[in-house]
Amino acid sequence: MSPQRDGQSGPSVTGRVLGILSAFGPGAEALSLSGIARAAGLPLSTAHRLVGELAAWGALERGEDGRYRIGLRLWEVGALAPRSLGLRERAMPYLEDLYEATRQNVQLAVRDGHEVVYVERLAHPEAVRVFTRVGGRMPLHATGVGQVLLAFAHVSVQEEVLAGPLSALTPRTVTDPHALRRTLAAVRREGVAVCDGLVDLLSLSVAAPVRGEDDRVVAAMSVVVPSAGSDPRTIVPAVRATARGISRALGSPSARRRPSGVVTPLPSAAGADAPRTAERGA
Amino acid sequence: MSPQRDGQSGPSVTGRVLGILSAFGPGAEALSLSGIARAAGLPLSTAHRLVGELAAWGALERGEDGRYRIGLRLWEVGALAPRSLGLRERAMPYLEDLYEATRQNVQLAVRDGHEVVYVERLAHPEAVRVFTRVGGRMPLHATGVGQVLLAFAHVSVQEEVLAGPLSALTPRTVTDPHALRRTLAAVRREGVAVCDGLVDLLSLSVAAPVRGEDDRVVAAMSVVVPSAGSDPRTIVPAVRATARGISRALGSPSARRRPSGVVTPLPSAAGADAPRTAERGA
Repeated sequence: MSPQRDGQSGPSVTGRVLGILSAFGPGAEALSLSGIARAAGLPLSTAHRLVGELAAWGALERGEDGRYRIGLRLWEVGALAPRSLGLRERAMPYLEDLYEATRQNVQLAVRDGHEVVYVERLAHPEAVRVFTRVGGRMPLHATGVGQVLLAFAHVSVQEEVLAGPLSALTPRTVTDPHALRRTLAAVRREGVAVCDGLVDLLSLSVAAPVRGEDDRVVAAMSVVVPSAGSDPRTIVPAVRATARGISRALGSPSARRRPSGVVTPLPSAAGADAPRTAERGA
Repeated sequence: MSPQRDGQSGPSVTGRVLGILSAFGPGAEALSLSGIARAAGLPLSTAHRLVGELAAWGALERGEDGRYRIGLRLWEVGALAPRSLGLRERAMPYLEDLYEATRQNVQLAVRDGHEVVYVERLAHPEAVRVFTRVGGRMPLHATGVGQVLLAFAHVSVQEEVLAGPLSALTPRTVTDPHALRRTLAAVRREGVAVCDGLVDLLSLSVAAPVRGEDDRVVAAMSVVVPSAGSDPRTIVPAVRATARGISRALGSPSARRRPSGVVTPLPSAAGADAPRTAERGA
């Protein structure tokens, strides 16, 4: 980023406004004016003026405790991002079906740079606890959805991640680039990632790619189950089917194609079980 | 809003940046640079510079079609708004239980000025179609959740809405201020709003208030069912129970109190059915 000047020293006004928004984050949901000024590197008077304008518009809200929080209007504008709620709305019926069938954590995520961003999570109160949240980020190499998104990303993205430091979230996170390269090849071959203990030692995730209009991988979804006593083989087919359903809803040509080896049934038989799928894929 | 100047004519740079974000909305999710400039009332050169800065930060994303969309990073910042995803995360287990129990549309909304903003919606594929979406707005007087939020809003908000024009979404929308005043009194008395055909003639909604830490109404939730053949009496208890559960999760003192007339069971009996509720309320 190279912010342009507006006849003033330091970052442009746009850069300052974005700096104020960047001051907020997980664990920093409510900030005082001086806290914002400090985090954004602005003089208090500048912060006061810009925060006032942001609050008047609704990008920030001032609470009774005098601290500022992200405002509802900014959330509304953010909700227009096609890679967040647009994707989520189309995927939701399929995610809900899987959630009801498994009673486990079901997640939907997209890639942003070298990270996974979670856009949806359905968490059953009695399911294994997961350390992700909607709007949260995780490194690509260390999660099931991340490995899927990395496996199907442009080769330049893969090489960047493989070259960089691979942080370990648990002793089982893949931090060796050669091992990660093999893992990614397996994910491409199997069309699914099975990750045991990568994010925390007690949970296992099964993730699959979601494809868009041009059949490129635009998202990944996963089910997270307790590591102990779970057999991923029992979950893989459901995850694959859900990912295919979402892909079809997004207009993926390959997800519309009949799988090879399947014999077209007689029209009457096809009519019997086709309607629900057809309705949703429309 | 009185945007301050930055030594330039017209709105401040902050005002211009916010004007660019305002150009996006439902039905205007993807805009060309000239479309943005037109909607924001900016010269093309100014729009070009500001859009470039916003895209570099991730507030906007440029698609392969050359058009701009709201970026994932802005959605992430918006996701920090306590009245959106924070509320949603706490409410979700209860909304999901109600969704599973009813197989209908379940909604969660907050008030912003004279409008309802929907922060969550679980829509069953086979449920009646609802004309709301997450991040969408509706007038307060014309929806179930809106009537609940209006009934428990400050009296000054109520008087403003009652004084203003009351638009009709259907022939059954309450547009007479006297009738609306009676409706709001009934909602306060019953603790629930039952709205038949207000948003569209085919659906009926049952809404109830959600209270926060200080017992003030901070949100409303509703179930939307087909108008034909639905008896709201069968839904009211479930909606009331769900709203109370969410209120308790948010720390509402009144939702922790044992309802009057309920006799405290013996300790052993209380232990038998208490755990799940206690876990969640924590």
